[in-house]
Order: sequence, then structure tokens, then C-alpha cells
Amino acid sequence: MTPPAQDRYHHGNLRSALLAQARARLAAGDEAELSLRELATRVGVSVNATYRHFQSKEALLMELAAEGFDELRQAMEHALPLPSAGAGAGAGESLHAAGEAYVAFAARERGLYRLMFSHKGRFEAHEGFRDASAAAFTVLLRLAAAARGDVPESASTMKAAMAAWALAHGVATLAAEGYLQALPDALRPEPGAILAMLDPRV
Amino acid sequence: MTPPAQDRYHHGNLRSALLAQARARLAAGDEAELSLRELATRVGVSVNATYRHFQSKEALLMELAAEGFDELRQAMEHALPLPSAGAGAGAGESLHAAGEAYVAFAARERGLYRLMFSHKGRFEAHEGFRDASAAAFTVLLRLAAAARGDVPESASTMKAAMAAWALAHGVATLAAEGYLQALPDALRPEPGAILAMLDPRV
Repeated sequence: MTPPAQDRYHHGNLRSALLAQARARLAAGDEAELSLRELATRVGVSVNATYRHFQSKEALLMELAAEGFDELRQAMEHALPLPSAGAGAGAGESLHAAGEAYVAFAARERGLYRLMFSHKGRFEAHEGFRDASAAAFTVLLRLAAAARGDVPESASTMKAAMAAWALAHGVATLAAEGYLQALPDALRPEPGAILAMLDPRV
Repeated sequence: MTPPAQDRYHHGNLRSALLAQARARLAAGDEAELSLRELATRVGVSVNATYRHFQSKEALLMELAAEGFDELRQAMEHALPLPSAGAGAGAGESLHAAGEAYVAFAARERGLYRLMFSHKGRFEAHEGFRDASAAAFTVLLRLAAAARGDVPESASTMKAAMAAWALAHGVATLAAEGYLQALPDALRPEPGAILAMLDPRV
């Protein structure tokens, strides 16, 4: 004998279960095919039960994208070889390590990564999304500042952080589209070697 | 008195008219909404007339994506300040100029650019697409080789060309998503300044 489906979840549990199901669906296929109704069925609750947590599919995806930026930030932070590095070569290495963690995250979470970058215009209405994406960028900004021996709030630090981000994003998206893999084995560069061509001090 | 719609076009004209309409539709909206039937109506012919040129929407989009890579290649080639530059600084500037032309093309042809990078797996079945995208990459490869004083067929030239491509692609896509524009005016880097942080000789 099993309890009615709606009672199987505490408040927080159902929320997490829906997000986890949505993430699994994104990894497997297309965002357009996803619906709250389908997620409800997969999790074993009524669609009404999902509305207690998410007003719409859009609200759920926005939350998931915010989670994604949060995990991307953590992945970059955990990759830093020298957490308290000062200016100079050590800080340049930290920026490079963060870039590698970024590319690895995008490869590991391909569907989630695509979602994070597909709806900025609409998702930015969501404070959690704005904060999480800004916090992830701040990691790069802090490392770029250290590499340049500059403050994070300068135009030249911003330029270096944007360059690190753009290069990591470019490598991640070209890899996701198969352009890196299409190269012959003997000529194919590692993502890390590509990232190393950026000089954050220029 | 106007002739029946089907007679208004010579073979090549209708083909070009359909491609031009599809390009305009991509610039205005979503690829998913586009259909051969709708294009036929816009151009003023029956949908059957379109089948003489394109077996399917997919075939038309593939052709359009190939056209896009062709124009991207031309845009990069026309931007080169020193067409016959040898190794050294001049060649590095050429690579940089090609990168700027790349980013400008992506900004100018946003819908087309998105199409070019959305279906590599399927579009590669099309020889014209494969050839056009390879030819565009060859421009970067040739310039990277000149900047390094190396041959185009080496792993390190490939690495530099992929880095130039990834950075230009990253800047183009982050700009398209609004991430560059979101920065305060005083801190926002120009695309060209971001591209200049790449050192093709590393």
C-alpha cells in the first residue's frame, strides 16, 4: 500500500524532484518538449501539485538556469589552484584553471548550459538568475584583476574578464556543436591549450 | 493584368527569391516558424513551385547556412589589411582584423549566424555546407600560420586558429545574448579590444 502521490513529498522535496527531472530531460533532449505536466507525471504527482512550486514551465526553467550559474561558479572556485594568489603568474594560472573548469562544466551539463544562455532577456526578470549569473562572472573578474594587478572595477579588468569568458564560452559551444571533435586526432587541441593563448595582462 | 505567379520567375530567380525571403524571416524571428509554404506565399508562387528548388525546408536552410559561411569567409578576406603579409606583427594584425570582421558579420546577420551554428550534425551531410564552412576556417588557419611563421597543417597552427575562432564566436554569441551590452558604458570593452587579448604566437 502506497500513500497518495501528492503526500509522498515534503514541500522542498517535490521542488527538488521537479528540478532534477527537468535537468535530466534537458540533458536528454529538447527544452521545447518539456512541460510541467510531463514532469509531474514522471515525478508521480498531479500537475496541480507542481503549481505550488512553479507558476509555469518558464518559472521552473529560470530557477534551473540560476542553479546552473550557481554550480558553474562553484566549479570555477573549486578549480582554483591558489585560492589566495596575488598578482602575476599564479593569478594567471588561476584564471586559466577557472576557464578549464568552465569548459568542463559546459561539456558535463550540456543541456543545462544551453538553457543558461538561451533566454537571458526573459530570465533576467528573475532576481535569483541575475544574482547567480553575476556571481559566476565575478569569479572571472576577481581572477582577471589579480592577474593584471588591477582592481576589479576597471575597464581593463572588465575587458580581460570578458575575454576569458568569451573564449571559454566559444570553446564550450564549438565543442558542443562538434567542431573540435571534427578535427583529426593529431591536430586537435585540448581546450586547456586553447585557453592558454589568452594573455590576461595585454 | 499580371502573369500567373509561377511564370514570374526564371529557375535561378525563384531559388534566390526563396533564399532571400528565408533570410529575412530568420532575421525577424524564429527558424521553427519558417515553412516552405509560407515562403512560397510571400514570394507569390505555389508551394509546388518551391519543390523544384528545395526538397524540404531543411534543404533550403542548409543551402542558406552554406551561403552564410561563404559570406563570412568573404567578410574576413575583405578585412585583411595586408593580403600577402609574411610572418610577424603584420600577420597578427590580419588575424585580428579577420576576427573583427567575423564578429561584425555575426552582429549584422544574427539570424543567419545562429542558423549556421545550430545544425552542424545534420547540415554536414551537405557538401556545399561542408566546403563553405571549411573554407571559412581555412582563412583563420592561413592567418594563424602566418602569425606563427608556421605551416597551416601543424597542430600548433590549428590550436591558434581554433583559439581565434572560439574567441570570435564567444564574443559574437555573448554580444547576441546581450551580455556585452549589459555592462555599464564606461566599462564595456569593444569587441576588437577583447580579440586583441589573444596572442596567436603562444
